[in-house]
Amino acid sequence: MAQRLKLIVAYDGGPFAGWQSQPNGNAIQNHIERAIQRVSGKPVRVHGSGRTDAGVHALGQCAHFDVDQSGLSPARWLSALNALLPATIRILDCRRVSNDFHARFSAKGKVYRYRIWSAPVLPPFEYGRVCHLTNTLDLEPVKRSAKQFIGTHDFAAFAANRATPEANSVRTLHSVRVTQRGGLTILEFDGDGFLYKMARLLAGAVVQHAQGKLSIQEITRRLAGASSKKPSPLVAPAAGLFLVRVRY
Amino acid sequence: MAQRLKLIVAYDGGPFAGWQSQPNGNAIQNHIERAIQRVSGKPVRVHGSGRTDAGVHALGQCAHFDVDQSGLSPARWLSALNALLPATIRILDCRRVSNDFHARFSAKGKVYRYRIWSAPVLPPFEYGRVCHLTNTLDLEPVKRSAKQFIGTHDFAAFAANRATPEANSVRTLHSVRVTQRGGLTILEFDGDGFLYKMARLLAGAVVQHAQGKLSIQEITRRLAGASSKKPSPLVAPAAGLFLVRVRY
Repeated sequence: MAQRLKLIVAYDGGPFAGWQSQPNGNAIQNHIERAIQRVSGKPVRVHGSGRTDAGVHALGQCAHFDVDQSGLSPARWLSALNALLPATIRILDCRRVSNDFHARFSAKGKVYRYRIWSAPVLPPFEYGRVCHLTNTLDLEPVKRSAKQFIGTHDFAAFAANRATPEANSVRTLHSVRVTQRGGLTILEFDGDGFLYKMARLLAGAVVQHAQGKLSIQEITRRLAGASSKKPSPLVAPAAGLFLVRVRY
Repeated sequence: MAQRLKLIVAYDGGPFAGWQSQPNGNAIQNHIERAIQRVSGKPVRVHGSGRTDAGVHALGQCAHFDVDQSGLSPARWLSALNALLPATIRILDCRRVSNDFHARFSAKGKVYRYRIWSAPVLPPFEYGRVCHLTNTLDLEPVKRSAKQFIGTHDFAAFAANRATPEANSVRTLHSVRVTQRGGLTILEFDGDGFLYKMARLLAGAVVQHAQGKLSIQEITRRLAGASSKKPSPLVAPAAGLFLVRVRY
C-alpha cells in the first residue's frame, strides 16, 4: 500500500535549470527525485504544483510523491532528503496527505513575489535575487498599474507562447500588494492561477508603465483582448521572481 | 600631483580568497587593483582598513588608493570600477580625501556583525551567510556571555596566533548588541579595533556558553589572562561574519 507525502520546498533558482526535469539532470525536480531514489532504492516521480523557470526562486514550492507505507516517517524523509540535496534546495516540511491530494490539480491558488532593486549600485547580497534597474522607480505609477490587474480577466496578453497554450486564459488575481523600502520594491501577486510567465509579464508591464513606456489605457486594452502590440511585452528577469506559497 | 580616493566596498566573501592579495589573484584586493589598473593603465596599490578572511563578508569595508589628479572624477571611478568588478564586489561610495588619510592607520573603530541561524533546516537564501546551528539558541545565555566582553580588556585569549602577533592586545568594545528573530540571532560588536579572528572567537565563545560548554567564570578568567584551556576556543565559521563599517 502506498502512502503519499507532501513536500514544501525552498530553493535558490540560480544554480538550477528550473523546476521541471531536464535531460542534463540539473532541474530541481531531478535533484529531488535522485535524492528520493537514493533513500528508497526505487525510481520515483515527484509532482510539483507547477514549473518554475530557470533562475526563478521558491520560498514554498509544493510537491508530492508516493512511497511504501512500510518506509520512513515524514520527519525522517525530511532529514534524509536535506542530507542528500544541495544546500540551495531545502525541504522545509514533509507530511503525509491523503492519496487523492495532488500538488498540481488540488492547488487553489498561488502567491508570487517580484523583487526590484532600483538604484545605480546593486548590493552584492541582492545579486541574483532581484531585477536591477539603475534608475529610481516611482511608487505611484507602480501602484497605479499594479492595481489594474486585480480581479478576473483574460490574461492571454500576459502569457508567453508555448507549444500547448492553456485552453482557458481567464484567471483571478485576488490582490497585488506593493511595498517599497529604499531601493527595494516588492510586488506580491495572489491569484487562483498563473499562465506561463504571467507573473514576470505583469511585473514587466508595471516597470514599463513606471518608466513611461506603457500607458494605463494600453494595459486596459490588453486585459480586454485588444492591443496595438507596442511596446512589446516585457518578461521581467527570472532572478527577481519568488514562488512564495501554493494554497490548497 | 596625486589625489587620494577613499572607497566603501561591499562584498560577498563566499567566492573570494579573503581581502588581502593572493598569488592566485582571487582576493578582493586583487580584483580591485586589477580594475583600477584597467582604468588608469598603471599598477596601483589599494590599502584596506584591514584584512577579512576567506568567506568573510563586508557591507562597508573601507580602502584608499592614489591616482593622478588629472584623471577621472570620484563618481566616474565608482561607475568604472563597478563595471569591471564581479557583481559580488561593489563599490558603494568613492570620494576624494586628504593625502594624510589612511584606510588602516586613520581608522578609529569597526563594527562587525555575526549572524547565527539556529533551527534544523537552513533556508537556501541564508546559505553561506550565517553560521548554522541545528539546535535552538537561547537568548538569555547569549546576552549574558556577550555582555562580558564590553569594555576595555586584554583580548589575547580571543585572538588566533599568527606569525607576527600584535604587540598590544588590549582593545575596547564599546557595545555588543544582541538581537534574535525566529531562527536568526545577530551579534553586533562595536570596538576600537579587533585582533586576528577576534570577532569569530567572541562569537564562538557566546555559542559555547549558550550550549553549556563554557562558563561565565571561564570567560572572565580568559579576559583576565588566565585559562584552563578547556574547552578549546571556537573560531565561529567565516560565513557568518560581516564587516559592517569602519569608523574614522
